Amino acid sequence: MIAAGVDIGGSYIKAGLVVVRTGRILQRSTTPFPGGKGPEAVFDVVEEQVRHLLGEQGMTASDLRSIGIAVPGSLDADRSRVVHAYNLDFHDVAVRESVEQRFPGVPVVALNDADAATLAEHRYGVLKGTRTSVLLTLGTGVGGGLILGGKLFAGGMGRGVELGHMTLRYDGRHHDCGNRGCVEMYCNADALKAGAPGRPVEEVIEGIRAGDPDMEPALERYTDALAGALTSIVNLLDPEVIALGGGVSHAGMPLVEALSVKVQKRSFSHAAPRIELAALGNDAGLVGAAIAHNNL
Amino acid sequence: MIAAGVDIGGSYIKAGLVVVRTGRILQRSTTPFPGGKGPEAVFDVVEEQVRHLLGEQGMTASDLRSIGIAVPGSLDADRSRVVHAYNLDFHDVAVRESVEQRFPGVPVVALNDADAATLAEHRYGVLKGTRTSVLLTLGTGVGGGLILGGKLFAGGMGRGVELGHMTLRYDGRHHDCGNRGCVEMYCNADALKAGAPGRPVEEVIEGIRAGDPDMEPALERYTDALAGALTSIVNLLDPEVIALGGGVSHAGMPLVEALSVKVQKRSFSHAAPRIELAALGNDAGLVGAAIAHNNL
Repeated sequence: MIAAGVDIGGSYIKAGLVVVRTGRILQRSTTPFPGGKGPEAVFDVVEEQVRHLLGEQGMTASDLRSIGIAVPGSLDADRSRVVHAYNLDFHDVAVRESVEQRFPGVPVVALNDADAATLAEHRYGVLKGTRTSVLLTLGTGVGGGLILGGKLFAGGMGRGVELGHMTLRYDGRHHDCGNRGCVEMYCNADALKAGAPGRPVEEVIEGIRAGDPDMEPALERYTDALAGALTSIVNLLDPEVIALGGGVSHAGMPLVEALSVKVQKRSFSHAAPRIELAALGNDAGLVGAAIAHNNL
Repeated sequence: MIAAGVDIGGSYIKAGLVVVRTGRILQRSTTPFPGGKGPEAVFDVVEEQVRHLLGEQGMTASDLRSIGIAVPGSLDADRSRVVHAYNLDFHDVAVRESVEQRFPGVPVVALNDADAATLAEHRYGVLKGTRTSVLLTLGTGVGGGLILGGKLFAGGMGRGVELGHMTLRYDGRHHDCGNRGCVEMYCNADALKAGAPGRPVEEVIEGIRAGDPDMEPALERYTDALAGALTSIVNLLDPEVIALGGGVSHAGMPLVEALSVKVQKRSFSHAAPRIELAALGNDAGLVGAAIAHNNL
């Protein structure tokens, strides 16, 4: 069975046809995000992309099991509307209905992009087979998703989870989200710069990956903060696996090893969960969107 | 149906016969904890108490649906052994087997005391009917339990949850638990003293409850920290209700109101969950232990 997945980001819209059984992407395309033209212009591009991909495969919309749309923002409790997706300038947008009208008869689901990535890692990647696990995405922002009871957890009140806005310093600086000293402030990609002044972030990440001793202070400082965040999650949920995705995760095994040591030391049971690099990389959102139907 | 619940604490052992349908305690007793004599001396007291209560009611052990034992410590994954309960000086103690031998034919369950209190609040108290909720106990230590999917959550790996050891200041002082700047350091009863120097804790709690303006700084300071902790829980789990128990919760509605305002401001959705005072007070552990059989 084939499903379409679309990952709408503030720079690009990525679309793909995905083999549901294996997670393999049959065909894909990437188009610039049409900024400033409103949601319908965005959905025009989405429709065009999906129809183009179907055409390339000699398929029609009726061959699709479902279409999934991942957005970088919050959705309402039944996931029919985007409440806010600031990077897209989407506010109270009826995403599901808009896409359904363009593909009559095909089930459409919308979901948060970090939730989509979590679903994909749970179905095909490093969270496979787990009942309690976490994906943390470390990029410009910090987000992620939770698997509880073997399923994606949407928050107890359906308002989603915001791993990047847990508290890391209760009396720290105020953040736009309303919290003070939240995880995102100390664990986003920019936070790597504090330990390597004057270096671009990409260079710091590559340096850590390559074991460059000049990057040791940046790694130490960053993992001190991130280990604090992971310890909160471990002491609250005792997960089987924590997966790390996003740009910072390209720092690879040196990042994983430093975190594992610190989380084991700091967590109450001193038995840290497995910490793993996410397996699906930048495709996780697209693949997760494609399989979201019947998995939410 | 009647079940026996026993709450073993470092100062007292409390036992009671509980009507399972209503949570009412038919008959109860409290005995000093026999310190320094080893686990079997403790189980001797437990047996004596339960048999005494049964005798008072004209009942025998065969009338009991089950016996539940709550301990202030960690248990192994199948809850047959206490791994560590420092206040009892219990380390790797086969609690279930020891009590079963004293009451042949009666099912025995053991569990953490905060988990027991959470079960009781979920069955009879302020967490009743919730699928996602939290009990936080604020006393000499800080602990608590989680309800996820409408059931007590034992941790993804069965090692329990430690709400008091989430991170509130990632670079804060080191704590015995291994973490730095953990919730317990800023939110236990003693932390109230920082805003009211020279006053005994009980006086600070009573002053807050009574609305004494001299206690305003203590309340402000304490709730700044605790709101940071609750915001972590809200942004991670989006619970329906957070219940507050333990000695500090006797500060009552002024505590609840200050927290509600701060958590609403700090949480990502700005829609704070209901924050409530726990309903069962000091009996929660005993009652929860009594009903733990078939509820874990």
